[in-house]
Amino acid sequence: MKQSGIPSGCVIRTQCLHIRPGSSSQEHVVLVHETGIELHLNSQRIMKTQCMAHDLEHMALGFLVCEGILQHRSELQEVAVDTHAGVVKISAQIPEHRLQAASAVLRLASGGSKTGVIDCMQQKVAEGFKIISDATLSAEAVIRLGNEFNHYQGLYRDTKFVHSAALSDGSRILYHAEDVGRHNAVDKVVGFGFLNEIDFAKSVLLCSGRFSLEMVSKAARVGIPLYVSPAAPSVEAVALAQRVGMCLIGRARDDNAIVYASPYRIQNLHYDHPGS
Amino acid sequence: MKQSGIPSGCVIRTQCLHIRPGSSSQEHVVLVHETGIELHLNSQRIMKTQCMAHDLEHMALGFLVCEGILQHRSELQEVAVDTHAGVVKISAQIPEHRLQAASAVLRLASGGSKTGVIDCMQQKVAEGFKIISDATLSAEAVIRLGNEFNHYQGLYRDTKFVHSAALSDGSRILYHAEDVGRHNAVDKVVGFGFLNEIDFAKSVLLCSGRFSLEMVSKAARVGIPLYVSPAAPSVEAVALAQRVGMCLIGRARDDNAIVYASPYRIQNLHYDHPGS
Repeated sequence: MKQSGIPSGCVIRTQCLHIRPGSSSQEHVVLVHETGIELHLNSQRIMKTQCMAHDLEHMALGFLVCEGILQHRSELQEVAVDTHAGVVKISAQIPEHRLQAASAVLRLASGGSKTGVIDCMQQKVAEGFKIISDATLSAEAVIRLGNEFNHYQGLYRDTKFVHSAALSDGSRILYHAEDVGRHNAVDKVVGFGFLNEIDFAKSVLLCSGRFSLEMVSKAARVGIPLYVSPAAPSVEAVALAQRVGMCLIGRARDDNAIVYASPYRIQNLHYDHPGS
Repeated sequence: MKQSGIPSGCVIRTQCLHIRPGSSSQEHVVLVHETGIELHLNSQRIMKTQCMAHDLEHMALGFLVCEGILQHRSELQEVAVDTHAGVVKISAQIPEHRLQAASAVLRLASGGSKTGVIDCMQQKVAEGFKIISDATLSAEAVIRLGNEFNHYQGLYRDTKFVHSAALSDGSRILYHAEDVGRHNAVDKVVGFGFLNEIDFAKSVLLCSGRFSLEMVSKAARVGIPLYVSPAAPSVEAVALAQRVGMCLIGRARDDNAIVYASPYRIQNLHYDHPGS
């Protein structure tokens, strides 16, 4: 079997806090890098995605093939991957009518890639944006909320298909939503909070899926200071949370959780230093 | 706790084939509906997403709030949800400078929502598109490939963050790719197949995540006749696979799998009828 041969630059190994009720310790975790990549076809920008910056030639070609834009191997002229600039440039000899049809489809699909919030947050971070909140949570409350969220049965029990998100005031879950996409589930709880004028600066967001840069950007954009998930984050999600002052808590299962960013929002945190 | 109160119309209960080596039986499964929803703000279309058509008011508001377009409850004038037409219309009094900034961000994000392939496949299905392939697979081969794919360790073991996709000729896995998005992982294996002129009509796609309409549309667009996953599909993914002649196999774990569509591609299939 050929494999895409993941280079070591796609992941980092770092130390985070492992919390349990009554005790905490340092633990090594491995995080994946995600990056924004643009696809240019014959000098025109046609797509942007968050991905792992590896095997990008295949990814760009596969996208064009799945969209029906590129149909025959002989049409392909050149593929140039510039990982540093985050661009894959493809030159191809494609019949005008197919380019036009594809362009109509891509226009139809446009405006909804939902990466706008990432660009927006990157700009705000450059301007020095911080979440204005003094909210904190005890390790016990993190574990308890995580368990309440994980044990909520809902549609997932029967379908194995949906994601869940919830909004909490730190002591109880106020609202719970499900959707086929985790970004939609988060939008639903944020929309609920907005309509009901809930103070996001005192809220905890819980979400079932992996927390990518987009998910953390959404929470940061509305000023939520605590994010709890049974899953894991990317390097970039952790970096954003650290810079804006969001406490990012993952692997929240049973009586364990990992604090990936801003541990000062966990109350009375004392942990055994390595070798102590 | 308030919940979004999922209405029964969001799921269906249907019969599928449960296969094991040497035997098969009918089994009830529950599938989630997904649907394409457009968001219009002050009569302008600004976003499109695949979602569960429920709690759409919250979803649309949450999207606008996370993007920074809507900032105060008092700016909101009206929300009209037309589930039948698949449109949520929001009227809001938003300062011109914020609308312009948001519009720039949304334009930047445009062209990459990756739902183009869904629109494209819906048009092709209306024109009578079928996958041209006589490929079949034995139940034993499905189970064996599924296990080989599921036991591939790769990056997921350490990071709990990435999705996997693979391309097989029915007897062995030819290529394996990983990415933070399952659509990107599928693009990567399709791009590999395209570059190496692999005959998609004789191929099996394996993918780790839930198989939504977008995932099945991608495979259908390139003419792959068999799709195997450890996860579950949506109603619309199953309907598309059925119409184009793709065998959709989910919950492929250990020595079990569920055939959701086109069971004629499974060799020597005989099963016990209920009551026999």
